[in-house]
Amino acid sequence: MATNRSWHLVKRPQGTLGNEHFELRESPAPEPADGQVRIRNLYLSLDPTNRIWTREKDSYMPSVPLGGVMRGLTIGRIDKSRNPALPEGTIVSALGGWEDYSISDGSLLWKIDQPKGIPLSARFALYEHIGTPAYFGLTRVGQLKKGDTVVVSAAAGAAGSLALQMARNLGAGRVVGLAGSASKCKWLTDELGADVAINYKTDDIPKALAAACPNGIDVYFDNTGGPILGAVLDLINMNARIAICGNISSYDADCDQPGPRNLFNLLFKRARMEGFVCFDFAADTAGWAECDAAITRWHLDGKLKYRLDLQQGLENAPTAIGRLFNGTNTGKLVVQIAAE
Amino acid sequence: MATNRSWHLVKRPQGTLGNEHFELRESPAPEPADGQVRIRNLYLSLDPTNRIWTREKDSYMPSVPLGGVMRGLTIGRIDKSRNPALPEGTIVSALGGWEDYSISDGSLLWKIDQPKGIPLSARFALYEHIGTPAYFGLTRVGQLKKGDTVVVSAAAGAAGSLALQMARNLGAGRVVGLAGSASKCKWLTDELGADVAINYKTDDIPKALAAACPNGIDVYFDNTGGPILGAVLDLINMNARIAICGNISSYDADCDQPGPRNLFNLLFKRARMEGFVCFDFAADTAGWAECDAAITRWHLDGKLKYRLDLQQGLENAPTAIGRLFNGTNTGKLVVQIAAE
Repeated sequence: MATNRSWHLVKRPQGTLGNEHFELRESPAPEPADGQVRIRNLYLSLDPTNRIWTREKDSYMPSVPLGGVMRGLTIGRIDKSRNPALPEGTIVSALGGWEDYSISDGSLLWKIDQPKGIPLSARFALYEHIGTPAYFGLTRVGQLKKGDTVVVSAAAGAAGSLALQMARNLGAGRVVGLAGSASKCKWLTDELGADVAINYKTDDIPKALAAACPNGIDVYFDNTGGPILGAVLDLINMNARIAICGNISSYDADCDQPGPRNLFNLLFKRARMEGFVCFDFAADTAGWAECDAAITRWHLDGKLKYRLDLQQGLENAPTAIGRLFNGTNTGKLVVQIAAE
Repeated sequence: MATNRSWHLVKRPQGTLGNEHFELRESPAPEPADGQVRIRNLYLSLDPTNRIWTREKDSYMPSVPLGGVMRGLTIGRIDKSRNPALPEGTIVSALGGWEDYSISDGSLLWKIDQPKGIPLSARFALYEHIGTPAYFGLTRVGQLKKGDTVVVSAAAGAAGSLALQMARNLGAGRVVGLAGSASKCKWLTDELGADVAINYKTDDIPKALAAACPNGIDVYFDNTGGPILGAVLDLINMNARIAICGNISSYDADCDQPGPRNLFNLLFKRARMEGFVCFDFAADTAGWAECDAAITRWHLDGKLKYRLDLQQGLENAPTAIGRLFNGTNTGKLVVQIAAE
């Protein structure tokens, strides 16, 4: 009988999430009941938003309860099925947990039809909750038009690096990215097609942004909130769109951070600021197919690159997630739980 | 030959706008050139947004230059015409100035077809830049749906008191207004149909708002910004809409005010915050007609009441505008320049 290792949230973080907040437990692998399937998890996605789920307060989804298995997005293979719609061997992504085996009744589970020429390990780097919000954030929330000036924060991050390239592919006139090191900035301009990259740790953000955007800002893909948002608000054009995808500047804070002092520019510029998560578009199957097709085409044409930060072993998940918040991570952070 | 009195902005305000920032000058009334008309101004609208126009920095429209005639929305009668499309005697509203006579080439000028049973003096209390943003803010920006909980700040003000009643007329399930005195609050609940009125000066805003909105907030018609916006953000429902009509809490400030600490709730609730001014809808003639018709019907049915704060004499305009910022004003503030 197989053993299931699972990481449980045993303490709520005050600052950065790490080993001390989790406990690894072992139990017999669970058996599916009628209508259920068992998934052998292969890959676990680690994301800034995981930090939000560990707060005591509910956010856009319920908080993970203390003692519960830590929630995570996974890719796995169905290895036992008592649901005819989901036969054994099916590859799926799921809103599952940090564990070897998960039970599912088929909800919050999506069959994966992985395109040829793209490895399964890259799934989380290009599609799913990374590529989809980048695409919907730019096209739906951001209403990107040809010629627009687009700014992306955390642009060397998993979603940001895709949003940056997609903005270019979708016809933006000027693309500006912000990242936290010289080497990340070099990657944005030399390989991802950014016109300008700003190092938010060493550059004067308002000055650098104003210089980088001589015609103002039409679309801001916001992964960070904080001072960058304030600098953007000073430069928005009439009818600008701010798509709030994340707010990593506040994830580690015990309480909310002060908002921008110039929020009122939204009125002066008749601009819009809107939060979204990719699940909001789940019912839009045509949109989802359009998005997946665009990603595949761009990637196979060499116009949508990714970096994968692939860590090995479920046992290392709590250590690995720290990489998202201390700046050592570049590219999509994924833990490989088992061999394909 | 007629004399034209005109108020010129001669000093930029640091705090509240008042007499010391203006100078009254006299000159012969101007003569229209070919294609132009001369308007005998009858009414001058005084509005919180006038304060924004006196800042050094441009806002949603250019700042009034030092020494220039103070800008204002006016209603007047064309008394000399060299433009066949605008014959003498036509009643118009215009983006004009604080003066007896204005010259216009027909741009930023709208013919008024005043409905029977409504006095011309009430034009600015029900229609134009007061009634129109209330209507468009609720229906277009706020996307008000039947049963929604709607909150309106500065709800005893000119636009707020209309937005409050319109929300009710448009089918809101619950309507909550915030105002700055017990008598204003009583007006909101006893005469304008608010379910609850909150005195923002004496009540604990977050507690009172939470008690007033047991099912959360779907639409916020924001006239104030500041702490009320923060309290609203804590209570917004999924896909809530915040229509930013004004931000009177910051108009008198020398610099921008801190933003709300919980702006990130826009992401958690996938909510939208959007600034607008009524001119944004100027090209939507069908929408404008729909709005005017709704206002007329509601008012004549007794479902859209207004209060008019009618002050006499152009010479009193700089004193009168202070009433908007010191809390003494209730209802639409209008200066009568000349008898109809």
